[in-house]
Amino acid sequence: MARFEGALARASAQHGLVPPAHAELISRVCEHARFDAAQLARDGRSGTLAIPFVKELTAQVAAVSPEAAKHLHAGATSQDVIDTAAVLCIGPACARVIDLTQRLGSAASELARRHGRTTTAARTLLQPALPVPFGWKAAVWLSIVGRSMKELRRASASACVLQFGGPSGTLWFFGERGPAVLAALAKELALPASLVPWHSARDRFARLGAELAILTGAAGKIGRDVSLLMQREVREAAEGAAVGRGGSSSMPHKRNPALSVLALEAAYRAPGLVATLLGQLTSEHERGLGQWQSQWFTMRELVCAAASAVSAMAEVLGGLEVDSSAMQSNLESLLEDHAQDSFGSASAMIEAALADWASASSPGKAP
Amino acid sequence: MARFEGALARASAQHGLVPPAHAELISRVCEHARFDAAQLARDGRSGTLAIPFVKELTAQVAAVSPEAAKHLHAGATSQDVIDTAAVLCIGPACARVIDLTQRLGSAASELARRHGRTTTAARTLLQPALPVPFGWKAAVWLSIVGRSMKELRRASASACVLQFGGPSGTLWFFGERGPAVLAALAKELALPASLVPWHSARDRFARLGAELAILTGAAGKIGRDVSLLMQREVREAAEGAAVGRGGSSSMPHKRNPALSVLALEAAYRAPGLVATLLGQLTSEHERGLGQWQSQWFTMRELVCAAASAVSAMAEVLGGLEVDSSAMQSNLESLLEDHAQDSFGSASAMIEAALADWASASSPGKAP
Amino acid sequence: MARFEGALARASAQHGLVPPAHAELISRVCEHARFDAAQLARDGRSGTLAIPFVKELTAQVAAVSPEAAKHLHAGATSQDVIDTAAVLCIGPACARVIDLTQRLGSAASELARRHGRTTTAARTLLQPALPVPFGWKAAVWLSIVGRSMKELRRASASACVLQFGGPSGTLWFFGERGPAVLAALAKELALPASLVPWHSARDRFARLGAELAILTGAAGKIGRDVSLLMQREVREAAEGAAVGRGGSSSMPHKRNPALSVLALEAAYRAPGLVATLLGQLTSEHERGLGQWQSQWFTMRELVCAAASAVSAMAEVLGGLEVDSSAMQSNLESLLEDHAQDSFGSASAMIEAALADWASASSPGKAP
Amino acid sequence: MARFEGALARASAQHGLVPPAHAELISRVCEHARFDAAQLARDGRSGTLAIPFVKELTAQVAAVSPEAAKHLHAGATSQDVIDTAAVLCIGPACARVIDLTQRLGSAASELARRHGRTTTAARTLLQPALPVPFGWKAAVWLSIVGRSMKELRRASASACVLQFGGPSGTLWFFGERGPAVLAALAKELALPASLVPWHSARDRFARLGAELAILTGAAGKIGRDVSLLMQREVREAAEGAAVGRGGSSSMPHKRNPALSVLALEAAYRAPGLVATLLGQLTSEHERGLGQWQSQWFTMRELVCAAASAVSAMAEVLGGLEVDSSAMQSNLESLLEDHAQDSFGSASAMIEAALADWASASSPGKAP
Repeated sequence: MARFEGALARASAQHGLVPPAHAELISRVCEHARFDAAQLARDGRSGTLAIPFVKELTAQVAAVSPEAAKHLHAGATSQDVIDTAAVLCIGPACARVIDLTQRLGSAASELARRHGRTTTAARTLLQPALPVPFGWKAAVWLSIVGRSMKELRRASASACVLQFGGPSGTLWFFGERGPAVLAALAKELALPASLVPWHSARDRFARLGAELAILTGAAGKIGRDVSLLMQREVREAAEGAAVGRGGSSSMPHKRNPALSVLALEAAYRAPGLVATLLGQLTSEHERGLGQWQSQWFTMRELVCAAASAVSAMAEVLGGLEVDSSAMQSNLESLLEDHAQDSFGSASAMIEAALADWASASSPGKAP
Repeated sequence: MARFEGALARASAQHGLVPPAHAELISRVCEHARFDAAQLARDGRSGTLAIPFVKELTAQVAAVSPEAAKHLHAGATSQDVIDTAAVLCIGPACARVIDLTQRLGSAASELARRHGRTTTAARTLLQPALPVPFGWKAAVWLSIVGRSMKELRRASASACVLQFGGPSGTLWFFGERGPAVLAALAKELALPASLVPWHSARDRFARLGAELAILTGAAGKIGRDVSLLMQREVREAAEGAAVGRGGSSSMPHKRNPALSVLALEAAYRAPGLVATLLGQLTSEHERGLGQWQSQWFTMRELVCAAASAVSAMAEVLGGLEVDSSAMQSNLESLLEDHAQDSFGSASAMIEAALADWASASSPGKAP
Repeated sequence: MARFEGALARASAQHGLVPPAHAELISRVCEHARFDAAQLARDGRSGTLAIPFVKELTAQVAAVSPEAAKHLHAGATSQDVIDTAAVLCIGPACARVIDLTQRLGSAASELARRHGRTTTAARTLLQPALPVPFGWKAAVWLSIVGRSMKELRRASASACVLQFGGPSGTLWFFGERGPAVLAALAKELALPASLVPWHSARDRFARLGAELAILTGAAGKIGRDVSLLMQREVREAAEGAAVGRGGSSSMPHKRNPALSVLALEAAYRAPGLVATLLGQLTSEHERGLGQWQSQWFTMRELVCAAASAVSAMAEVLGGLEVDSSAMQSNLESLLEDHAQDSFGSASAMIEAALADWASASSPGKAP
Repeated sequence: MARFEGALARASAQHGLVPPAHAELISRVCEHARFDAAQLARDGRSGTLAIPFVKELTAQVAAVSPEAAKHLHAGATSQDVIDTAAVLCIGPACARVIDLTQRLGSAASELARRHGRTTTAARTLLQPALPVPFGWKAAVWLSIVGRSMKELRRASASACVLQFGGPSGTLWFFGERGPAVLAALAKELALPASLVPWHSARDRFARLGAELAILTGAAGKIGRDVSLLMQREVREAAEGAAVGRGGSSSMPHKRNPALSVLALEAAYRAPGLVATLLGQLTSEHERGLGQWQSQWFTMRELVCAAASAVSAMAEVLGGLEVDSSAMQSNLESLLEDHAQDSFGSASAMIEAALADWASASSPGKAP
């Protein structure tokens, strides 16, 4: 929030709306400003944190220069600060989630490559179907992860744009210089500019939220499969036995799918959070009642859910213990009457999934 | 579903797996087959309609040629039929929704153009803020509609692909010829092919569902604003008084925002439907329990909700009664103490929104 | 809807507001009236079906007596008809769901009684824990079913009350006689009366919807467990092999948990439907925009989901194939190192669950 | 969590399972134990906080008496600690929410009483309908609040029960003494006992969550109405102008419905959280993967949402500025052609709502 106010002062100065010395002073105070979050929350009785925040920051600037303080936040409104600050947090957080997804996909692609001839039973409706390569199973996981990573990257880039419109959204305060100040402010914050304000256009947050939930669900899907394969009666794969993982407070001998549980836990929570964002699209007029005020919070929950789920499953797939002899012996006892000499198009499918992944994970090179 | 089976016979024949005469016969029966849906539902005790459907269709083919009937559905599985049939319905339905969205956007863009100087009050938290052009308000609506149309087109193209994998997903039945039959089948059905099966990869349906909900919410947002503007105490805009619209069973003099209600009604239902799709991402192994079995139904509800909402608001904006003198007089009584001689960057914002819309509505020409 | 209008005429006649002969005539027409639903839907452009319905019914009455037709619907409003008609459908539907739940609970209680000494492995996080009686597992199922049945009965009784308020909700048309006509109308429809109207108080529908979803989830929980026990690698229990159940279109030898899938399918859809009802609590003033208009539809989906899930699992538990020797041999291979000579308090827990169920299933006798 | 462990030691001692001196020592350490939450979170790699918590607490006990430390947590399992600790927090939190609801209902009932003859326009579909007393409007609010308070009290009492079952749920460790230790533990913690464990029976949490959301929606409904009445064009009622409330960072003259926004904000978030709880009913076997692990968190969000919404609207209704002359003049301009001399049954409805509230708010006296 302070970064926004400092950048606004500088951008305004570039276009003659704030004396350069004042902008520099504001900028410096913003850079080092510290806030008592609990106190701001207590003061936030006006329904938005921006008001006590601006008041407190103004006091900190005024302590150095009362004249400069008059220019702080000039032309902006509460939602500009809140939404832009949210975006300044969400963007890098999504980048981190994408990094984790890259790790998850790499681990899945490694399994797809390594286990192209490791035979296991396909299971449909939890019943054994036909033999398939375990690597093909990993390739299906990979196909979801690849698409989700690509779409998350796109949705994050689309959603993480500057919000700047002032009280009513038209940049009234800046007269003719609105677009120029907006462009300068975007540049200061290294954010894409969107001239049409999105104070009451929450579609991009909803879309980004949906992508985060889809990625979380992708991790949950893998966690579901791993936890099923890890059943003692199946024992075909297992989470690696890292220190402190998967223990039990009452049965030390147990080995639990603890990381898969993290992915599934997140996958249970994400859909409802997205429903919240989708239900907030119908905001009133130029600034709604009860939507944007807490979307930063809902987005935070979604980013954290995705990070937790993806990180957990990247660790799982990276160290997955695949028991190919258990796969073989299960298959024999389950499907004795089935010919097992053909995997159909499994190899071609694995190749296709790996090619898609290569394209998704190297966006710079792909068309 | 019959289209799928007919096309599969032809595609298999092209690659030597079904005698051409049998394929032709199957294809012809499929083209004219009729089914008693209620009876199929009663027979659908195995958890999927595909089983009684295939049984009934087999009987219809066998009535002509028992030999040909042996080739029906060969190599496919229930989910191939259900998912592909769903896609064959959803694709054109989305195309229709996109057409309606085109109408909605055109109407909004016309308002944005026409009312660039019509002054109204921006309203934030339902309180009057500063004067803005009514056309700018329409431009914000337009920006949401344009993005949503573009993204829906993309999500629909991405989700509406052939599902074909056979019992376990590897096209086992087809041996080496799997990819070729799959390509031929996709061509027969005029669907994009996806070699990696998506029987247990439901991310694209979730993404398409989310886009349908976002578009529904975009229509709901406009409906919210129109219904608020149509309040008798505000009276700045109104749904056109078409025959049979907006009446009351008890108060014939009333004029209700009946079409906006349709949009809002749909916008209330869509988020929960998307939560269902997102909650179904964690399906078990190669074919889950309780996810894909009813996603065609949930998708249908979402497409219908979007169509109803967008169609209603396209009609509203196309015939919106804008009362600029009411806007002016409200503004005077609400904001007497405010300078009203500047719209800030409203004109530039309107231009930007119109340019974005032009790009979204002519996808062929845009880069 | 016609029942409501007929009953209203009779109730009004009892209090001198409609001539008895006219009321009798209206009542008779309503009893035999038939409607073209598709045509009503096409005419329903005012946002509620009640308007074309009342128009059509008025025409049918007027065809017999134009004078009588003037009294039809007098004093009522669209929402009175829609909400009350919904309740007239939902009440009996819930009674049917409760009957099915009674069957489900009876089957679970029978398993709890029969298998008090049948040893199986408790499974936590899908890993074997300690030996427990299979009957104890059924007792835990029973405890959920019993509570849910009791609460559904209560929520249905609370939600299925007459809605009657007229245009604004105050029974304005009836002057002093409002409460008397309301009481008479409630009696005619065999519905509880609620003097305070609930046109804009949707809490009871939300509560009933939540109970239907909880019951659906209870059935889904049992379906989850059965489908896991039915895995070929576990094989401790199985859905009975009724004709036409659990087959596969591609692998006739397969035995699928087809009924458990129905329960799980419903359990995936119910939560989002409840979120819709909960999101519609904040309706505007005396009659909202987009909430009550389709709640009858959402409630129908929820009742159907519950009926499908509960009915499926009642059939499953009623014919469950329990393989106690597989339980024993799994246990030996899974938990070789554990003493198995104690079930702790399992027997007492089974007794407690059976006692709770006895109380829930005989509401008349319980305090 | 420490309270649970201390109470378990005492309860076990009462039944001869832990030496009294050790129990006393454990109890004393638990009473004063302090934890580094961040460190526990970092150590919580096994998927539940209970494991690092028990480890750390064991170390604290062992620092005093290694012998006593052996008895800590004996016979219990992670979920016993987590669920019971959650209940120990949620119960008092719900009691606090109920107190706030009592304040909200009292304020609504005061308005219902005071404004039984204050005329305002009923508004349906945001259009003026007929005149009604403002007190009648408050009575409808009151009816929702009263029901919701009564049901929340009931759901909280039903959900906030001891969870105690040990590793598999049968209290295996305690042999014959299980029920007695459970009863003693419940008494130590002042919680109701439930002999049948609810580790995998999450219906009561779902029910309590739904009630919290319904109450939140009740507050949101009132907030919706107040914010609509507070529109400058309507101006019939307004939130009181308390210090620091409803300001704007850019337009100091504005008076925003800041508290109603808080209620609406919470009402947007609650439905999705309930969908999460409902989606978690289908947990696997005796301890599920990803449901109970975070329900304490979801419940916390719901309790906080309800508290925030109810507290905000209690403050609003307690200080509501009702402008009866604006109501009168709006009515005249809106409904010139309507007789205004009758409120129908409004007075009787107000009386009925007040009587229901009296019963709901004095549960001890009601039957």
